[in-house]
Amino acid sequence: MLDALAAGRADGIDVIVFPEMAVPGYIIGDMWDRSAFLRECEECGIALRDASQSIICVFGNVGIDWNRRNEDGRVRKYNALFVAENGRFVGPAECPYPFVIKTLLPNYREFDDSRHFFDLRKLALEEGRPVDELIAPVMTQHASLGCTLCEDAWDMDYSISPLNILAHKHADVFINISASPYTVNKNHKRNRVFSAHAERIGRPLLYVNHVGIQNNGKTVYTFDGSSCVYDGCGGCIECGESFEENTLTCDLPIESPARIGPTVSLCEDTIETTCRALLYGTRKFMELCGVERVAVGISGGIDSSVVASLYRRLLEPENLLVVNMPGRFNSRTTRNLATELAAKLGCFYAEVPIEESVSLTLSQVDGLELSTAAGDKKERIAISPLALENIQARDRSSRILAAISNAFGGVFTCNANKSELVVGYATLYGDICGYLANLADLWKTEVYELARHLNEFAYGEEVIPTGSFDLVPSAELSDAQNVDEGQGDPLIYPYHDTLFKSWVEAWDRTTPEDILAWRLEGSLEDRLGFRGALSEVFSTAAEFVDDLERWWKLYQGMGLAKRIQAPPILGIKKRVFGFDHREAQMNPHFTSRYETLKEKVLRERI
Amino acid sequence: MLDALAAGRADGIDVIVFPEMAVPGYIIGDMWDRSAFLRECEECGIALRDASQSIICVFGNVGIDWNRRNEDGRVRKYNALFVAENGRFVGPAECPYPFVIKTLLPNYREFDDSRHFFDLRKLALEEGRPVDELIAPVMTQHASLGCTLCEDAWDMDYSISPLNILAHKHADVFINISASPYTVNKNHKRNRVFSAHAERIGRPLLYVNHVGIQNNGKTVYTFDGSSCVYDGCGGCIECGESFEENTLTCDLPIESPARIGPTVSLCEDTIETTCRALLYGTRKFMELCGVERVAVGISGGIDSSVVASLYRRLLEPENLLVVNMPGRFNSRTTRNLATELAAKLGCFYAEVPIEESVSLTLSQVDGLELSTAAGDKKERIAISPLALENIQARDRSSRILAAISNAFGGVFTCNANKSELVVGYATLYGDICGYLANLADLWKTEVYELARHLNEFAYGEEVIPTGSFDLVPSAELSDAQNVDEGQGDPLIYPYHDTLFKSWVEAWDRTTPEDILAWRLEGSLEDRLGFRGALSEVFSTAAEFVDDLERWWKLYQGMGLAKRIQAPPILGIKKRVFGFDHREAQMNPHFTSRYETLKEKVLRERI
Repeated sequence: MLDALAAGRADGIDVIVFPEMAVPGYIIGDMWDRSAFLRECEECGIALRDASQSIICVFGNVGIDWNRRNEDGRVRKYNALFVAENGRFVGPAECPYPFVIKTLLPNYREFDDSRHFFDLRKLALEEGRPVDELIAPVMTQHASLGCTLCEDAWDMDYSISPLNILAHKHADVFINISASPYTVNKNHKRNRVFSAHAERIGRPLLYVNHVGIQNNGKTVYTFDGSSCVYDGCGGCIECGESFEENTLTCDLPIESPARIGPTVSLCEDTIETTCRALLYGTRKFMELCGVERVAVGISGGIDSSVVASLYRRLLEPENLLVVNMPGRFNSRTTRNLATELAAKLGCFYAEVPIEESVSLTLSQVDGLELSTAAGDKKERIAISPLALENIQARDRSSRILAAISNAFGGVFTCNANKSELVVGYATLYGDICGYLANLADLWKTEVYELARHLNEFAYGEEVIPTGSFDLVPSAELSDAQNVDEGQGDPLIYPYHDTLFKSWVEAWDRTTPEDILAWRLEGSLEDRLGFRGALSEVFSTAAEFVDDLERWWKLYQGMGLAKRIQAPPILGIKKRVFGFDHREAQMNPHFTSRYETLKEKVLRERI
Repeated sequence: MLDALAAGRADGIDVIVFPEMAVPGYIIGDMWDRSAFLRECEECGIALRDASQSIICVFGNVGIDWNRRNEDGRVRKYNALFVAENGRFVGPAECPYPFVIKTLLPNYREFDDSRHFFDLRKLALEEGRPVDELIAPVMTQHASLGCTLCEDAWDMDYSISPLNILAHKHADVFINISASPYTVNKNHKRNRVFSAHAERIGRPLLYVNHVGIQNNGKTVYTFDGSSCVYDGCGGCIECGESFEENTLTCDLPIESPARIGPTVSLCEDTIETTCRALLYGTRKFMELCGVERVAVGISGGIDSSVVASLYRRLLEPENLLVVNMPGRFNSRTTRNLATELAAKLGCFYAEVPIEESVSLTLSQVDGLELSTAAGDKKERIAISPLALENIQARDRSSRILAAISNAFGGVFTCNANKSELVVGYATLYGDICGYLANLADLWKTEVYELARHLNEFAYGEEVIPTGSFDLVPSAELSDAQNVDEGQGDPLIYPYHDTLFKSWVEAWDRTTPEDILAWRLEGSLEDRLGFRGALSEVFSTAAEFVDDLERWWKLYQGMGLAKRIQAPPILGIKKRVFGFDHREAQMNPHFTSRYETLKEKVLRERI
């Protein structure tokens, strides 16, 4: 930031703007409860202030009042915007602090603002003054700045609008500094909202957002930047390339609200953006963790093929190792697909079979006679067919992949997708382990879409073999999952993906009660966005209801138990498992209205 | 609740009080964003209301306004207290709703109130009225009730006090309904605070708290109840036994503020309370998950011995299986201690060696020549000594324990303690796995204390062998960890436990900067509560600083990466890993002041 400031001054720039919490970072867990860290942030802010000679520097940092307390008894902290001009901080006229305080604190999804920061509304209450008195433009030599922080401009569900108060007080230029993670389709909404703000206010508006990744442990978020300068008619004067750190420079027309830039583009994100977000997030997370070599277990199926193909975009072939770990249930078909993929990727390939180890485990456990020391109790235990499936999955990940990736000098990946994670159709310490799950926010149907995109656009050739697309999705852990006989997963992805999406990603999340109510209404397929008919999926109403209950119980039960111990997920959607979609282990809940509706549904034909 | 209401009516009770969020539960993740669930909660509240004939029913539930929005755009929800009298809800006179709204929402530790609920201060702002206008007693036929919810009475760090406002408006009786998880030493603080409130106000005060467990996925919290009725002089009229669901009945002296009960007891919790909390929490979590049989891997060391001994208090011997899994580095000493423990517990015992499997893994991976399909690149990989340690640990848990517990019809435990978890001195998918980590909020030194308590009081005999206490703590995963030669963990627990505690559990968490500042001040031992001298632990200042940096980097680095995938932890302290102590993976941070202090420290003698 000091370098950018110096460069800006050399270029004769009047005002330079950095994003929200540019100094400390934004999603940084409970770092905020360490005074030593806070002091360091404050000192960095002072260094920026002192460097603001002949250039106005606007930046986000934590605003600290060492003499007051937050409501948790810790030191008072604000999510603040600082304006430094000629070595001094300039705040809004009526505010008791020399910085702008965030008024609207988001407390949804991954946001925990009220956990850490005191907001302007609480301050107004404490000071016994109306909130709007404390909101005012910052007067600088060049212009009066209407400064807001991120959520302040997403005011549709709040009873006050900091932007409107500032507009009423005649700010010349509006600035919004943000730390807003990338979410599929958020950008076009943001463009629509901010363009409309600028047009309504009739003043230029700068939107300045973070670039990079930040995480809350369970979830890794990408920040795409996409900073944008809107003119007073809502046109777009300048817009930064997404997922790239860059400096936008432009002349701001303070006087005239004439349209300078073109109308903002409002297209929805495509799989190409998803692909970019995943590659960017994965690369940045590798840098963060110091990962330079990666091992991917590949089965010949679509998920692991996509993961390997993504990593090959980020790594030289000698730093990528793909490992096929056949067992007795793996077909020649999938083993061939795995070697085909490895050959296309040109990276290291190893085949490490699990059969001998699985047999050893069976010989040690299956049929073992347990006894007490006194010999007063005896019991013979046995491995069930399902347990044998899990033994194979764990052998692959916790035994082979963990050891081989370590010997390779790297880490191994988790290839789980979101559909599996919802219902726990995967094995803990088996396919649910690894250093990062970078596909785990994609539904299975989206994994296929991404696979096609990788072949067609990223590689421009068939890296992921056609066979992996045509194959029935299967874990190949038992005779009942024989791909050559078309036997595979119990999930019918085109239907279940839409069902699970409504459980997880809908803002007002659905439950089996809603599903049955929509079924009775005849609107279920439409509501879910399922492009088939229920009658193609189920032959009776009872089958439909059993299926619903089976997966709901797993979603709330064993699936959740597995998610708690799952690797970090690279999040790109609204509601990623982890801190975005917070969950408690409880008995799966069916409402009493569900039971009533169920009786009705069961009386109908599917 | 309906049963209790009927029983109360039959007994001629005037008023019955249930805890905060008695209907839906309190720590239930994002269940709040499901309308179907909210409707069900509302219907349950109506059932209670309708049953309030001839008995006043006070209970916690979510208060919903379907016509307004929360700030996240979802339906408006309040954390509310309902008073039902003769089939009608009675709210405070000035409040726009027929229920009492929580004014002070906690947003620290595991509390996420502002994520889900709209508070009374925001409502006042929205309505354009002063907050204290909306706070008033609830007038019932028997008395006017000064109703508050949990945090409302923990008002020391807030700018308003709902209790004082209600006192000013002359409520006859004060009620505080709570959902306050058990935390070591919270109860005596609570007794002190609430007794002082009652005395200051000069009115009786009922404190009604949850009993049971609730969890947020990563952390399982016990609720100890310990509901209490204080007289108007702060005396304790009635107090419920902790960790027991019970109904306290008493005559409340509305007229006179005379002391009826004895002065409240303010003793600190002992290891006995910790033991009760752990047993209670473990039992309840087993019930929640439907666990009836448990396998514990026992090494002969103290942690696994304590875990096995705890489970034996909860399970018949035929439902507990202890498994020793010797490898080539395990001494005869610890193997004997394991069999000794098993004999004392009288439960099932199995010895399942890992050696053959570890050799197989080595033969498959160590010295393996990797190659690309085209054969243009080759590389031979090797297993390092540290990797071999991890292979053994994973073999025990992910291969043997997972398979054997499954065949036994149960689950297996995670025996990690808090000291290990801080710095990740344990193996992921190895000793860091299992269905629940019930010791993981105890420092290693506390594990020893608990072990002594179990022998002396819980069992009244030496169940955990003396040898397990005398043994040097060791992972026994290499020749360098030979217990018979006194070689073991790199942690000096009496010192490192106090150091780590200051990093994790202090409200204003310390960092290496603070540690060095205290060292220079000469107050480090006192500040940490370390009962030895640094010079006994380190021979030079450089050694002290190296040690500090080594563990700090692990705490912030690999330790955190492992915690993200760790099993649920049974929490009993202030700052449990998980949602209580939120963390982001970042590069370990040393402040610039740390570097300055380090130079000074290195110039001094230890």
